[in-house]
Amino acid sequence: MRGMNDLMNLKDSKKMIQESTRKHEVLYGVVDIGGTKIIAGIASDDALLATKRISTDALKGPDDITKRIAATLTELKEELNLSGSTLSGIGVSVPGPLNTKEGIVHFTGNLKWVNYPVAERLRAECGGISVHIDDDGNCAGLGEAWYGAGRGMKQMVYITVSTGIGGAVIIDGQVYRGHQDLAGEIGHMTIIPNGPLCSCGNYGCLEAIASGTAIGLQGKQLLLQGKSDIVASLSNGRMDEVSAETVFLAAEQGDSACQTIIRNAGTYLGIAAANLAHVLNPEAIIFGGGVMQQSAVLFPIIASEMNRHLFKIQQDRIQVKAAELGDKSGLWGAKRLIASLTKKI
Amino acid sequence: MRGMNDLMNLKDSKKMIQESTRKHEVLYGVVDIGGTKIIAGIASDDALLATKRISTDALKGPDDITKRIAATLTELKEELNLSGSTLSGIGVSVPGPLNTKEGIVHFTGNLKWVNYPVAERLRAECGGISVHIDDDGNCAGLGEAWYGAGRGMKQMVYITVSTGIGGAVIIDGQVYRGHQDLAGEIGHMTIIPNGPLCSCGNYGCLEAIASGTAIGLQGKQLLLQGKSDIVASLSNGRMDEVSAETVFLAAEQGDSACQTIIRNAGTYLGIAAANLAHVLNPEAIIFGGGVMQQSAVLFPIIASEMNRHLFKIQQDRIQVKAAELGDKSGLWGAKRLIASLTKKI
Repeated sequence: MRGMNDLMNLKDSKKMIQESTRKHEVLYGVVDIGGTKIIAGIASDDALLATKRISTDALKGPDDITKRIAATLTELKEELNLSGSTLSGIGVSVPGPLNTKEGIVHFTGNLKWVNYPVAERLRAECGGISVHIDDDGNCAGLGEAWYGAGRGMKQMVYITVSTGIGGAVIIDGQVYRGHQDLAGEIGHMTIIPNGPLCSCGNYGCLEAIASGTAIGLQGKQLLLQGKSDIVASLSNGRMDEVSAETVFLAAEQGDSACQTIIRNAGTYLGIAAANLAHVLNPEAIIFGGGVMQQSAVLFPIIASEMNRHLFKIQQDRIQVKAAELGDKSGLWGAKRLIASLTKKI
Repeated sequence: MRGMNDLMNLKDSKKMIQESTRKHEVLYGVVDIGGTKIIAGIASDDALLATKRISTDALKGPDDITKRIAATLTELKEELNLSGSTLSGIGVSVPGPLNTKEGIVHFTGNLKWVNYPVAERLRAECGGISVHIDDDGNCAGLGEAWYGAGRGMKQMVYITVSTGIGGAVIIDGQVYRGHQDLAGEIGHMTIIPNGPLCSCGNYGCLEAIASGTAIGLQGKQLLLQGKSDIVASLSNGRMDEVSAETVFLAAEQGDSACQTIIRNAGTYLGIAAANLAHVLNPEAIIFGGGVMQQSAVLFPIIASEMNRHLFKIQQDRIQVKAAELGDKSGLWGAKRLIASLTKKI
């Protein structure tokens, strides 16, 4: 009986969704392309109706990926009994430097795309409908600004702390892009002049100090220098087993060297947030990304350090918040992106 | 005959101005209130027609100052043969934290104003015409954006390096104000974590490292520690004779300790500029203020340090420029401020 009920519920749910989307008559494809996974989904104006994860392991090259995304969107429509409906457009969140106007991804590390015209190819695979792309930081920021922790705010800054550090500056509900579409490169603000080398070639960038990669690297150094028995035990003494997760876990288990690494990362994230607060005076600075999800300990350090650097009248008037949409912020942002470009809202 | 010609020219000039302003039919009062001097002027839509400096030495208290400003604007109109014309409004550039909406200056150091309703008082003295105020950084930035080094740019950042360090973020030709009207506090970005104490109570702010006051303070330290014969000679060994000017002069005369102070100030200004470039991706970062006027040596250091921190695609696409309007940028900005608020342009 349980199974029967579930089936009924599923059917009812599908019917409701179908009616709801018929009423709205607007459906979007939304895609979040990450380094190791891709999520595709179908969204209405106010809901993610269904999503599906695509593993990139078995896929060969970029065209294989766009074909698979197109096929997945078709599958999702079928599953929702929406095969007859046409998508109004597809919004795509992608990593790496890109050209939003031309829909070209210049470079992605993990997927090894070089100057790949993802928008044009996906458009071709999906019957010529409108496809727009933006980078993962901007999409996640846009998602949080409209549907997450930044709902109702005019100005906010989104910072994603993950393998790298990125983000978005949101003004009047839109991604502020700057002169070359390069605004919001928060991870490459210099926080410690002549600090650690960054992947960008400079020294002392926030990303080189407080990203997941930087935290993991400092954990590896502890192992190499024999300064943490807990890290050695958690990793079985293997360098390639030490990651940011290891450092957080060791800190939780009382390892003081790892606690210092996390305190430093939080402190520098707080200084970066204070600098952004002084320049942009936003309503909130919202932190998302994998590293932030892991650590309840990082957040109070960031907030207290940021407030330490602010004027009295800014303190507690500029919120430090955690992102609310988890790994869906990019999809929500992709929805807002394509909705705003196809409906001119 | 020379004198006669000059007199004719003056009359011709006044007549031309009068005709020109009659044609435009819009005149503004513009006021730049500084720590030690006040400049009042009459502007048309495209020219500063006349300006006059008011010494604050003999003035007693804020109401005395607003009375004197009103009287000076009347005098200037008379001198321009424009006594019959009505000003469309008055734009005022003021130092210190303020409330632009209510026209109140919360605090100024040198003038010792506390919560002074300068807009309301000046309005009362000037027959009830519209008076709007903004802080000196925003006004100077707005002036440069519309009539100076930033003409035609959509996004620019203005940094004033003077006794303190301030500035403005200009987006789409308007001052970007933020949530609490506190955006653009560029001098209080932390550049050296745990660096020198700043007047704001924090440590390592740009203002505490690279302002005129900070440069002068480092010069005084050289004198105190006996580390610069040139500074000792220029100041006759007196601490109160050592200022930023002394440091620049000593550097010019080959003093290596002073050259280091200036190189450091330029380096940190360049890092701040790079951070702003990464966050805002503006067309230009424009430097003004007394310290910048003095030093041809500072500018190349700032530009080269900024570019060192930028991605290749940003280098030379984000300009570092000197302000072009000198001590008139605030007046031009006050003109733009009042023009935009009274004409809704």
